[in-house]
Amino acid sequence: MHLWNGYRPEMVTDYYQFTMAASYWQEGMEGQATFSLFIRDYPPQRAYFVAAGLESLAAAIQEFRFHPDSLNYLQSLGKFPEGFLDYLARFRFTGSVRALPEGRIFFAQEPLLEVSAPIIQGQILETLALNTLHQETLIASKAARCVAAARGRPLVDFSLRRTQGVDAGLKTARSSYIAGFLGTSNVLAGQLYGIPVYGTMAHSYITSFPHEADAFQAYARVFPDNTVLLLDTYDTLKAAEKAVALAKELRQQGKALRGVRLDSGDLLHLSQKVKDLFRSHGLDHVAVMASGNLDEYRLEELLSQGACIDAAGIGTRLGVSADAPYLDMAYKLVEYEGRPILKLSPAKTTWVGRKQVFRSFTPTGTLHEDVLGLAEEPMPGTKPLLVEVFRQGERIRSEESLETIRRRFDRDWNRLPEPYKALRPTQHYPVRVSRALQDLQDRVTRDRRRDEVGSP
Amino acid sequence: MHLWNGYRPEMVTDYYQFTMAASYWQEGMEGQATFSLFIRDYPPQRAYFVAAGLESLAAAIQEFRFHPDSLNYLQSLGKFPEGFLDYLARFRFTGSVRALPEGRIFFAQEPLLEVSAPIIQGQILETLALNTLHQETLIASKAARCVAAARGRPLVDFSLRRTQGVDAGLKTARSSYIAGFLGTSNVLAGQLYGIPVYGTMAHSYITSFPHEADAFQAYARVFPDNTVLLLDTYDTLKAAEKAVALAKELRQQGKALRGVRLDSGDLLHLSQKVKDLFRSHGLDHVAVMASGNLDEYRLEELLSQGACIDAAGIGTRLGVSADAPYLDMAYKLVEYEGRPILKLSPAKTTWVGRKQVFRSFTPTGTLHEDVLGLAEEPMPGTKPLLVEVFRQGERIRSEESLETIRRRFDRDWNRLPEPYKALRPTQHYPVRVSRALQDLQDRVTRDRRRDEVGSP
Repeated sequence: MHLWNGYRPEMVTDYYQFTMAASYWQEGMEGQATFSLFIRDYPPQRAYFVAAGLESLAAAIQEFRFHPDSLNYLQSLGKFPEGFLDYLARFRFTGSVRALPEGRIFFAQEPLLEVSAPIIQGQILETLALNTLHQETLIASKAARCVAAARGRPLVDFSLRRTQGVDAGLKTARSSYIAGFLGTSNVLAGQLYGIPVYGTMAHSYITSFPHEADAFQAYARVFPDNTVLLLDTYDTLKAAEKAVALAKELRQQGKALRGVRLDSGDLLHLSQKVKDLFRSHGLDHVAVMASGNLDEYRLEELLSQGACIDAAGIGTRLGVSADAPYLDMAYKLVEYEGRPILKLSPAKTTWVGRKQVFRSFTPTGTLHEDVLGLAEEPMPGTKPLLVEVFRQGERIRSEESLETIRRRFDRDWNRLPEPYKALRPTQHYPVRVSRALQDLQDRVTRDRRRDEVGSP
Repeated sequence: MHLWNGYRPEMVTDYYQFTMAASYWQEGMEGQATFSLFIRDYPPQRAYFVAAGLESLAAAIQEFRFHPDSLNYLQSLGKFPEGFLDYLARFRFTGSVRALPEGRIFFAQEPLLEVSAPIIQGQILETLALNTLHQETLIASKAARCVAAARGRPLVDFSLRRTQGVDAGLKTARSSYIAGFLGTSNVLAGQLYGIPVYGTMAHSYITSFPHEADAFQAYARVFPDNTVLLLDTYDTLKAAEKAVALAKELRQQGKALRGVRLDSGDLLHLSQKVKDLFRSHGLDHVAVMASGNLDEYRLEELLSQGACIDAAGIGTRLGVSADAPYLDMAYKLVEYEGRPILKLSPAKTTWVGRKQVFRSFTPTGTLHEDVLGLAEEPMPGTKPLLVEVFRQGERIRSEESLETIRRRFDRDWNRLPEPYKALRPTQHYPVRVSRALQDLQDRVTRDRRRDEVGSP
C-alpha cells in the first residue's frame, strides 16, 4: 500500500508555517497546543460530509522527517535564524491525533481532526492536513450523492482525464469507492489500492477501423466475455442494430454480450430505444451503460423520467466536484498551554478548546442528534466519534482496509434520516453545542473582546 | 528539476487504454495514427486559454516504460491475451509530438497537442496527456484573469491547503507563476521549480500569544525586514493601531514594517481606513495586502470601488478554478494510416486530419486571427503555432525555463486585443477553418454518414 505519494510531506506546506515555527522556536514556545480541523459550513445543496483522507494523512505523519534536500532548500532561502534548521533536522512528531475514521458521516462545525502537540509540531502539519483531508472528503461527499441518485445501479469512476492532477485522480477513485462506487477506470488506483478497474473502448478505437462493425467484432475476439460496445460514434441506433447482430453471434458461441455504452445525445430516449431493441431480440441481459457529463443531478433526472440505464460512468463532475469544488475547511488553534483560544474574525468564529463529537441515536438506530462538546465532558448515552490515531507520536490505530471503511460508510448512510440525503436538502442535521462548551466560548469571547478590542 | 512526480506515468491511465491496445495488438494494427488534443468550447466568461503542462507531459513521455511492478499488476488482472504484456515490456515511444509551447495564448478548437505514432502508442498516452495538460492549462488560464484584474498589483498563490490534492497545488503554483504571479506560499513549488515563496503569519500564531501586540513584537524580532502583520484576528482597526506602534518602533531601529494583511471583513472600507491610518502617521510605505476568498471578480470589484490594496494572496478560487473547475478538453483520433478520421456524436464533432494553427497579426503586432488548417498546408504571412517536441521518439525541443515561458505569456498577453481580456467577454476570438480542412471535413462526414448511418 502506497498511501502517500512521491513528494516529501514536510515540503507540502505553506511557507508561513516555517516563519511562524521559527518565531515560536526563537521565543522558546514549547507549550502544548491543540489545533482543530473542521468545515465551517455546507456548500449549496449539501447536508452531510463523508470523512476521508485520514489514512493518507496518517501515512504522511508517520514518515514526517526533514530530508537533507529539504533542509538545504530552506537554508538556501537565507531567512531563518541560526539553529532553527538544526531544530528541524531533529524534528519528530511527538503529539496525539484524534480524528473521525474514514467513511464516517459528519456535519459542519464538527472537528474531523484534532492535533495536540508542542505548538510548532501542530502548526507545521496544518497545510498537509488540510490538503489531504479536504480533497478526499470533498470527493467522498460528492460520490455519496451520486450513489444515492443511482438508486442501486453500479457506478464507475471515469474521472482521471479531467481531475485536477494525478493525485486528485487517484484520490477520486479511492474516495468514490469508499462511498459505494463499484470501481474505477483508474489503473494506478487499481494497482495502489486494489480497487476493481473497468473499461472497454473509446471512440478512437471505433474510428480506427474501416467500419464500426469491424471494431465491434475485433473487440469481441479478444474479450468475448467482457465486451461493452460504445454506440454513439456515428449514430447510436444504427450502432445498436450492429450490436444486436454481434450479440446473436456471441450467443451462438455460448458467449454473451456484456453491454453497450451511450456517451452522448438524448440519453433518456436513446436508452429506452436501445433497451427495447435488445429486448425485442431476446437480449434482455445486455446492460445499457450511460456516461458523458453525468452527475447526481443528471442521474436523478434521467432515472425519474424513466431512462433505461443499468450502470453509469461518472467522470469530470465527480472528479472536480463540479457544483462545489471546495469546502470551507479550516485548521485552527483552539488551546495553548491549557488556555482556550479563539479568534473573532467576522463570519469565521471558531469554537474554543479540545473537543469531541457526541452522537446519539433513536431506539431504531437512526441518527438523532450530535452534540459538540469539550473532549473530556461526560455525555452519557452518546457515542464519541473522534478516535485516537496517534499518541505521543506513535500510531496506535492501525491502517484500515478500504472494505472496512466502505462498510462504515454504508452503515452510517443507512442510519442517516432521509431529509438529509436529498439532492436538494431543505434542512440541516441538528448539531447542538454543549452547555460547557458554550459557557467557555462566551467567557473567552468576552475576555478577548475586553483585552484586544477594548469593548465589553 | 522534478517535472514528473513519484507515480509511474504508464499507470496514470484509464483501463480501457490497455483493452484497446490489446485489441490493436491482436489485430496486428501497427499503422501510424494522429491524435489531436483540444478544448471544445469556452467555459462561461472565458475567451482565451493559456497553454501549460507541456514540460510535465514531455518529462513523463521521456521516462515512459513499463516497470515490472506495472506489468505484474496488469498480469494479475488475468484479462489480457498471451504475449500482449511482453509487447508492453518492450514498449518505447517512437512517435512525434507537436504542441503549443507553454505560456502561449490559444483558443477553443485549436490543437494544444498532436501525437503521431503507431496507434497503440498514441492511444496509451491519452489519459496522461489529458490529465497533465488539462490541469495546468485550467489554472494558467484562471491565473491570467486574476493578474489582469489586479491591474499591476503583485499576486501570490495561497491555494495549497484547498487544491484538489498535492499535485494540483504544485501545478497551481507553477501555472500561476507562468501567468504573472509574483510567487507562491507553496514550499514544494519553491523547492522543485525555484518559484519565489512568500508568507508570514496565520491567526493561530497571533492567538498563541497572550496578546496580539506580543505576537506582532515577537514576529518582528525574528524577521525585522520581512514582517507583514495579520490584522483581522480580533478587530482589524484596533490591530492596525498596534501595527502603527510597531512600525514606529521599527523605524527607530532603522527597520521598516513591510506590510499588513487583511483576511476577512469588509475589505473595501477596512483597506481604506487602514491605509489612511498608516498615511496619517507618515507610514505610507506599509503595504496593505488582502486575502480571503479573492478571485478576479472580487479583485476587480474591490479595486474599481477604490479599495487601498497593494498586493493580494489568491487561494482556493484560483487553485480549484472555482467558477470553471474543468475544461471540455478532448483527445481524439484524427488520422489513421493516412485516412482522415472523425466521429459524428452530436455536439462532439471533431476536425479531421493532422492540423496546424496559423496565427496572423496586425501591422502593429496585435493578434488578428487564427486559421485552423491542415498541418502541411501553405499559409503565407502567418505563424504556425504548433512546434515539434518529439521526433521518432526523441525529444528534440529541450526543456524551457519558467522565465522563458513567463516571457512568452507576457508577450502574447500584450498582443491580445482588449475585448478578449475582459472578465466578462462578449465575443470570441476569430478562429477560421481553412478551405482545405473544411473540404476534407465535409467529404469525410459525407462518407461516414453513408457508410455507417446509411443516409446521405
